[in-house]
Amino acid sequence: MKETPDAPVTEEGAKDVKIRWLINEGNGAPTFIMRHFTVGAGGFTPYHSHDWEHEVYVLEGEGKVRYEDREEKISPGDAILIPPNRKHQFQATPDRPLKFLCMVPK
Amino acid sequence: MKETPDAPVTEEGAKDVKIRWLINEGNGAPTFIMRHFTVGAGGFTPYHSHDWEHEVYVLEGEGKVRYEDREEKISPGDAILIPPNRKHQFQATPDRPLKFLCMVPK
Repeated sequence: MKETPDAPVTEEGAKDVKIRWLINEGNGAPTFIMRHFTVGAGGFTPYHSHDWEHEVYVLEGEGKVRYEDREEKISPGDAILIPPNRKHQFQATPDRPLKFLCMVPK
Repeated sequence: MKETPDAPVTEEGAKDVKIRWLINEGNGAPTFIMRHFTVGAGGFTPYHSHDWEHEVYVLEGEGKVRYEDREEKISPGDAILIPPNRKHQFQATPDRPLKFLCMVPK
């Protein structure tokens, strides 16, 4: 399944973000779904919240997660839980892309 | 959270397998849990089934997944859905460890 093409994220507030579904409902996933994100150098995901959680695992690059009250640096091997209804944004450093998995409930 | 120590998997049928919890209920995960596995060179997970699914992402090394009817080679970047109640086993090649994430419902 790793050959599925990246698709641009068109949500307002996203800059240079691509998404690829690795495991989704079409594969028969009963509970949660696995996506792969690439945030280009200097790019970021929308600064938003929603009523489901994220479970993120950083694969490549460096960056940070922005919350309402703080920021946190992230690097490969970091696992991050974003609880439901918490504002968050993933940002890549200016020099290279940030790649991560992001799992969400179905 | 990446500094949590690896713990040996003592389930019968496991050979040289270590598990590390990256995101679990203690972190407030509402729906599913993230674990990191290291299978030593030549090692394998138990050949078993259970009534919940696995979602696996291969990080390092090479190996295969054994099912009842076939085997599949796996390498970094592969995403694998093991549906509930399907027998499966992860095997590392003899030369180096296999590392993967394995997410399961809570």
